Amino acid sequence: MSDLLIKNARPIGGELADIRIENGRIAAIGSSLAAEGVPVEDAGGRIAIPGLVDAHTHLDKSLLGYPWYKNEVGPRLIDKIDNERKVKRDYGLDAHVQSMRQSLQSVGYGTTLIRTHVDIDTDQGLIALEGVMETRRQLTRVVEIEIVAFPQSGLIRRPGTAELIDRSMAMGADLVGGLDPCGMDRDPKGHLDTIFAIAEKHGKGIDIHLHEGGELGAFSMDMTFERIRAHGMQGKVAVSHAFCLGAPDWNMTQGLIDTCTELDVPILTTAPPSREVPSLKRLRAAGVRFGAGVDGFRDTWGPYGNGDMLERAMLLGMKNNLRRDDELALALDVCTTGGAVAMDRTRHALEVGGRGDIVLVEGETLGEAIVTHAPRKLVVTAGNIVARDGKSLRERP
Amino acid sequence: MSDLLIKNARPIGGELADIRIENGRIAAIGSSLAAEGVPVEDAGGRIAIPGLVDAHTHLDKSLLGYPWYKNEVGPRLIDKIDNERKVKRDYGLDAHVQSMRQSLQSVGYGTTLIRTHVDIDTDQGLIALEGVMETRRQLTRVVEIEIVAFPQSGLIRRPGTAELIDRSMAMGADLVGGLDPCGMDRDPKGHLDTIFAIAEKHGKGIDIHLHEGGELGAFSMDMTFERIRAHGMQGKVAVSHAFCLGAPDWNMTQGLIDTCTELDVPILTTAPPSREVPSLKRLRAAGVRFGAGVDGFRDTWGPYGNGDMLERAMLLGMKNNLRRDDELALALDVCTTGGAVAMDRTRHALEVGGRGDIVLVEGETLGEAIVTHAPRKLVVTAGNIVARDGKSLRERP
Repeated sequence: MSDLLIKNARPIGGELADIRIENGRIAAIGSSLAAEGVPVEDAGGRIAIPGLVDAHTHLDKSLLGYPWYKNEVGPRLIDKIDNERKVKRDYGLDAHVQSMRQSLQSVGYGTTLIRTHVDIDTDQGLIALEGVMETRRQLTRVVEIEIVAFPQSGLIRRPGTAELIDRSMAMGADLVGGLDPCGMDRDPKGHLDTIFAIAEKHGKGIDIHLHEGGELGAFSMDMTFERIRAHGMQGKVAVSHAFCLGAPDWNMTQGLIDTCTELDVPILTTAPPSREVPSLKRLRAAGVRFGAGVDGFRDTWGPYGNGDMLERAMLLGMKNNLRRDDELALALDVCTTGGAVAMDRTRHALEVGGRGDIVLVEGETLGEAIVTHAPRKLVVTAGNIVARDGKSLRERP
Repeated sequence: MSDLLIKNARPIGGELADIRIENGRIAAIGSSLAAEGVPVEDAGGRIAIPGLVDAHTHLDKSLLGYPWYKNEVGPRLIDKIDNERKVKRDYGLDAHVQSMRQSLQSVGYGTTLIRTHVDIDTDQGLIALEGVMETRRQLTRVVEIEIVAFPQSGLIRRPGTAELIDRSMAMGADLVGGLDPCGMDRDPKGHLDTIFAIAEKHGKGIDIHLHEGGELGAFSMDMTFERIRAHGMQGKVAVSHAFCLGAPDWNMTQGLIDTCTELDVPILTTAPPSREVPSLKRLRAAGVRFGAGVDGFRDTWGPYGNGDMLERAMLLGMKNNLRRDDELALALDVCTTGGAVAMDRTRHALEVGGRGDIVLVEGETLGEAIVTHAPRKLVVTAGNIVARDGKSLRERP
């Protein structure tokens, strides 16, 4: 929690201003603010935005630092899941090292808050969780990391997994994860009852991966809604992906969206071009909290991505057919303040009293910054300078 | 048409080899080829790919070189079209300067063959065509440019446009353009009869922008097929976008795809994340010629894009959910040789006898080259070096 004065910045693309951070929070935004012995950075007229927020990723599984992974995986979901467990064993993949690599790469791109899903399964037990927790500890002053204990290989189909998730929560994971209650576990009641019970026991929230499309996804969401009501967990249960909200049936999807509003269910997207996805503008209009993430990248699942949430804002914009400058600003908000709000952080914003997380980006306008996503000049986390010119100051292992 | 020896390259990601170009064509690919007085370039082990092919763009309308265009355009297609004509007048946009800027930017990214649609309308007449033809003349040895005379503002709805298209063909445009026969001109019969008549008169091909989705697009394609048969224009009529081929109704789309195969109708995509698009693998399996392009970018239509066909290969892969390395190679083929084949160029390939268009890209594998799309080390057009380290040797105006 440090002090810093950033001079000659353009907050959110507006007029030139100085930004003073005191004790890690924004104390003042205005012209010609006095330096008074604090470190000073000159933004050179660059646009300042809040720290980027990656609300959905997998820090434990990228293959960053390894030679290119030749992907010859079969077409089914279970092919990919089984293959990943095998590759982890074959490589002896160290979740701490990999999560350090990815986190610091993301910090270089300006991300200051991450929600990561960490694989918990009966093959590897809690070792990935321990590795990511060590990364979180080492990067306390660099990037905030929130951990979801995630049953990637299934919960009901692999007995013992629920107990591991339960232990994960006791160890310090922040949220209980879920995954395709129908498609993966073939037992939506068993899956959802189990994760809600663990969450209630530990007084924690839930974040469910829901890839199920159309009516199947709608069914799983409905079963989730029933349990949110029964457990009084309004505002505590997020759904990631939620492809079913992008289905063409307007009446079905509007019913689901209205219930997300009523039960305060945040939706987290990665905006994959190949799938139907929740509409940014539609969810915003309904008042649904909405964030975005880079998802896993350079892993056994697929080759795309790099951790850059400014590039993700572009993909989110392209997927949602956003073309106007005011629409691009909306995409950026989802990738900064909006994502933080979806993660229950209320003061992650470029405003007095807001968290001192600032990124200086290149471009004449916010739109240009998003479209070109050039290397970030400066990244500040709670007043600490953590990256310059696209590189985190701390070296990657 | 020059000679060049490229040493230590990895053709299409394979084993190290030298590539000798003589008189603009690939004369030999092998180990330790003799230099014999020709210029030599050392690829340093980089991957060599054929020249990238941008099979669908709009060279006359980017705003490259201007300050950021603040987009506040209305939501309808006609809002965008009317706005664009107004901005062109307000800016005094020079199609020659803009097409030089875009072409040379694309050359920096490794594009050696471009099909561009040039606006022909009753406001500006043939001035954009003249400008792009001048660019084509000046860049003869740098990049091959094929011109479609394109009725962006409508053909039937703006009397006099057909006559301008007719004159465009006499001036040297390569293909007759069409645009949404139902949605734009509200007269599919009139629109299609007119463009087929002009094409037949000049003995030229056709390339139709078809944004119409679902059943409407299917209807316009059917009407196009009828005229291909009637005029005996098999293999001479391409359809750009063809969003209707991505509609969910399998039977409807398969009927259209089978007819594309039968009548040899190439399909050209820009793989927009926000729309249903033709499936790469499905069209390839059906034997349909299939190319890709960057579409317009940084113009009054929208902010995204930069002219990079290697980035487009990534977007094509993401849109088509291609994850395996063999699938990524397919995406790259569409953006190189496949696109050229769709444009009737049969020897645009990295093979003996092929055109000496070579790009050296960064990456351990083809997949990494696509995913990272780092600046191109070297770009060669018919044996001439035209770009180094991401920049065309000829300066942009």
